[in-house]
Amino acid sequence: MLKAPTHQVAGHQAQNGKLGPLVDDSGLFYKSLQDGGRGSHELAFYTSFSSNPKVPPHIRRFFPEFHGTRLVEASDGSGLLPHLVLGDLTFEKPNPSIMDIKIGSRTWAPQQPKDYIAKCLKKDRGCSSPALGFRLEGVQMYAANETGYWKPERKLVQNLSAAEVGLVLRKFVSSNTPSDCLFAPAIYGGPHGVLSLLLELKAWFEEQTVYHFCACSILVVYDKEIAGRGTVPAGVEIKLVDFAHVLDGRGVIDHNFLGGLCSLIKFISDVLRT
Amino acid sequence: MLKAPTHQVAGHQAQNGKLGPLVDDSGLFYKSLQDGGRGSHELAFYTSFSSNPKVPPHIRRFFPEFHGTRLVEASDGSGLLPHLVLGDLTFEKPNPSIMDIKIGSRTWAPQQPKDYIAKCLKKDRGCSSPALGFRLEGVQMYAANETGYWKPERKLVQNLSAAEVGLVLRKFVSSNTPSDCLFAPAIYGGPHGVLSLLLELKAWFEEQTVYHFCACSILVVYDKEIAGRGTVPAGVEIKLVDFAHVLDGRGVIDHNFLGGLCSLIKFISDVLRT
Repeated sequence: MLKAPTHQVAGHQAQNGKLGPLVDDSGLFYKSLQDGGRGSHELAFYTSFSSNPKVPPHIRRFFPEFHGTRLVEASDGSGLLPHLVLGDLTFEKPNPSIMDIKIGSRTWAPQQPKDYIAKCLKKDRGCSSPALGFRLEGVQMYAANETGYWKPERKLVQNLSAAEVGLVLRKFVSSNTPSDCLFAPAIYGGPHGVLSLLLELKAWFEEQTVYHFCACSILVVYDKEIAGRGTVPAGVEIKLVDFAHVLDGRGVIDHNFLGGLCSLIKFISDVLRT
Repeated sequence: MLKAPTHQVAGHQAQNGKLGPLVDDSGLFYKSLQDGGRGSHELAFYTSFSSNPKVPPHIRRFFPEFHGTRLVEASDGSGLLPHLVLGDLTFEKPNPSIMDIKIGSRTWAPQQPKDYIAKCLKKDRGCSSPALGFRLEGVQMYAANETGYWKPERKLVQNLSAAEVGLVLRKFVSSNTPSDCLFAPAIYGGPHGVLSLLLELKAWFEEQTVYHFCACSILVVYDKEIAGRGTVPAGVEIKLVDFAHVLDGRGVIDHNFLGGLCSLIKFISDVLRT
């Protein structure tokens, strides 16, 4: 009953016999453990996080539900492999619009080997992260009565200028006409909108010294149909994902993540202001 | 009438015929223009900043007064050289306690040449910046009835762990007995204390996209005698200094500076809490 997710904007994809995540029809998302120790590192994070009393209850909603691990048939046909069992963020959203935003001007940890850092620095030079403090990893936007989904090339969105990122953030909450920002008040604004949620997350990052979220993404998900009906909270969700490089905070706040988060908040605020 | 400043904790020093800053007896500080284009870059910043209408008036007090440039006899005896004329931050403070805190986990700009970045990365590895988001560049603390000034070696303070930085921040506001934090409420706390000032600065950095303050320091200055008398504002001052590497913000907040500033704020808050 497992199948490749319909709405994936970043990360490895389960298609043409490649290894990637799977979903079932009960709202679960199965993420195969990545190689090179990253999978076990991510599992260790989920295990630590799910039982850490230092994480306040209201912060847990910014993380995917964690249901342990399960051996399932891998998408690449290589047999039974351990998978993380997580909540499926697009479950019961028929037409989800999604942004995957990798947070932090630096996507590597200072204590990593020189060669690895050199490789990352080279990659970073080809994307928005050093300049903006974050980069778009992938975007899809449901353009209701028009062409279905707008889903620009991943490589393209990773290397946008500040002005271009501003345009994508506007288009993400627009109706068919590009950049009318029709849905900005419902999606970005209001007490349950993206800006409020990001500010709540920011308040935690100003205090918490438990984890450093290196190379993590924030997923922004909403459904235009649900938003259009004017329901609150309009189906807006913010989740942190990808914990293969989370480090011990060692008594210091995650200034790299927080700086990038503040930069993203400024961009979202600017859309709401204009 | 010019002489080397008595209370300098970081930067080049005018002693033994070397080039360094000078002060006069009217409260002015003369900073010789640094070579390699850094001096003219810093002058360009002061000129731009002093007339930039985007800088709110209440933020100007976080920057040294700028009185243009003047040709004065250089401290190294090399003749008349152009100097920036700035306010002397220790003027009329008989026994100033001073911290020079270089802000940002990264002290180089992403667009600088590869070789320069490699050199900076190597230097950064030997100091606190990547881990803490800032580093102490220099400290002096007036220990009233004891030994005069406590002034640890610069090289030593640049490479402290989180726990050690916490200890220095406590000692900086303590009476003779180390770390009693007797002056913490007067210096770090209250409406005119360091924490309030840093929070005000932070609010600006969450918004401003005009400048990126690469490799800048925050100077924290107070006078224990003045603080002891219980006057408000207890002579506490916060100033940004060293603008040889300021860059155009290009529509993005200075996430590198802001992240480090938030980390420093967390450290100061922790001293006030315990």
